Amino acid sequence: MNATPVIAIHGGAGTLLRHAMNAETEGRYHTALTEILSAGERILADGGSALDAVTEAVRLLEDCPLFNAGHGAVFTAAGTHELDASVMDGATLEAGAVSCVTRVKHPVLAARRVLDVSDHVMFTAAGAEAFAAAQGLELVDPSYFYTEARHQQWLKARGTSGTMLDHDAMTKFAFDNDPIDPDKKFGTVGAVALDANGHLAAATSTGGITNKQAGRVGDAPLIGAGCYANDATCAVSTTGTGEMFIRMLAAYDVSAQMEYRGLSLEDAAHDVVMTKLPRIEGRGGLVAVDAKGNVVLPFNTEGMYRGYARVGVAPVTAIYR
Amino acid sequence: MNATPVIAIHGGAGTLLRHAMNAETEGRYHTALTEILSAGERILADGGSALDAVTEAVRLLEDCPLFNAGHGAVFTAAGTHELDASVMDGATLEAGAVSCVTRVKHPVLAARRVLDVSDHVMFTAAGAEAFAAAQGLELVDPSYFYTEARHQQWLKARGTSGTMLDHDAMTKFAFDNDPIDPDKKFGTVGAVALDANGHLAAATSTGGITNKQAGRVGDAPLIGAGCYANDATCAVSTTGTGEMFIRMLAAYDVSAQMEYRGLSLEDAAHDVVMTKLPRIEGRGGLVAVDAKGNVVLPFNTEGMYRGYARVGVAPVTAIYR
Repeated sequence: MNATPVIAIHGGAGTLLRHAMNAETEGRYHTALTEILSAGERILADGGSALDAVTEAVRLLEDCPLFNAGHGAVFTAAGTHELDASVMDGATLEAGAVSCVTRVKHPVLAARRVLDVSDHVMFTAAGAEAFAAAQGLELVDPSYFYTEARHQQWLKARGTSGTMLDHDAMTKFAFDNDPIDPDKKFGTVGAVALDANGHLAAATSTGGITNKQAGRVGDAPLIGAGCYANDATCAVSTTGTGEMFIRMLAAYDVSAQMEYRGLSLEDAAHDVVMTKLPRIEGRGGLVAVDAKGNVVLPFNTEGMYRGYARVGVAPVTAIYR
Repeated sequence: MNATPVIAIHGGAGTLLRHAMNAETEGRYHTALTEILSAGERILADGGSALDAVTEAVRLLEDCPLFNAGHGAVFTAAGTHELDASVMDGATLEAGAVSCVTRVKHPVLAARRVLDVSDHVMFTAAGAEAFAAAQGLELVDPSYFYTEARHQQWLKARGTSGTMLDHDAMTKFAFDNDPIDPDKKFGTVGAVALDANGHLAAATSTGGITNKQAGRVGDAPLIGAGCYANDATCAVSTTGTGEMFIRMLAAYDVSAQMEYRGLSLEDAAHDVVMTKLPRIEGRGGLVAVDAKGNVVLPFNTEGMYRGYARVGVAPVTAIYR
């Protein structure tokens, strides 16, 4: 008998200082996470696939302006939005990804379409948009991605020398005027799921980092770095300082340590997040699920927007440690 | 005492039918491989780093029209050239990559510059070109990448329904008129090296696949798929059906099997090329070196342009099994 289907999601990690939050702000995040988990849970409860559940959860995260993906994405140094997404099917090891798209409303749907219909795994920039358009996906004017909070965040970042890597910077700028700490801020969204047939899937999407150089690609659209799924081991979606997650192959490494070292999901994910990533100053976290329905949500930052929902049980959401 | 420095390179794999070759053609490949290995060997003999040796070897492979990278790259479906490259330093796990550049003369030098000076790991498309330009790298008119043999190959591929994945298709079309077999053709170049200080490095570069859709990104610029280096395990550069190498994290998987299963370089590389990749119909090969100076060059196709050179010893080159 298969384990109870379950979905887990994240909405980015970073230095989520409690003093910058209040009950109303926190409540909005908990509500958004709960609603999105419930939507994924319904798909799984109806016998839907893990692949469909993670795609829909990430699509909803892209639509929510609280999170740095889709509507609500951060600004590049050029004042534009460049979006990345990926998805992987643990049953087949098939994958799809797009990077550096500027007009695709739901980057995760473009990644999914790459998985579903293309012989290729990844498309970038204009070619990715042409693929999405040919597939009939919704294109939007780049202004669709604009949100006032992200614009203020960008204007502030431009005034400093560095990029802003942080998800929660928005919170700071929307609700107070704390100085930017560019080393403690980042954001991505993602989902992992186990379905009733025992299949796993993962999906990840991001707007990248505030004031990033045009053309920068982080870990989110890279299979094995920001997204990985394999029925034999686990499904993983990451968020954090993307460059370090690329260099550590963070998502795949959880799977590799389960497969080759015989570690549990919990021990493998802990090693990646708490030992291997910190070795190169990698900060962030991940959500992961295995075929037995175990769920882990480790992070090495102050907080990570996260939650999980088992079919038939109320969703659990959290922000801080 | 450290092992003798060594460099290994590849120039793509595929169905290199002996009847499509002749002594003169074969001689040109052996000569090119030998000269490039000798250049890398000189750097290592002079105490240069593995990182410098692989960068220079791949730069020379990009310059050589016999191989599908830089000058001699294949054409996309749009009749353009889109180039990808990556490099990784096993001493620091630092990495650099560019994808989908159209005017950078030496994509591997752009990847190297990303590694050397950028906080980021990967740039794509226009942003990657802007980075290369800002770094003073040589830009060329896209016509620089034109070669008559690749153009003929593209015209032929356009007449068929499929893409041509093959390096050796050029040989076929340059020297005979065999029908295209789109399942048996691909090409990339790459290098791995061990230096006198015991450091490892890897670099990979490609023009992709003939008649590919614009914006397609293969494994060559993806850290862990087409390129990986870690002093604790090995350095790997791959060539083959890129999508399957992405899904299998082929380059990193060699390292993971050494680190987590305790396999030798030879056994780990054999498992990836001969067992894991074929499981999803992945075809191609790789070159790899470990810190003891062991070199392996496995492939599951008819042939792979390849060779290695230990400092103080004449280079060894090969094409067929």
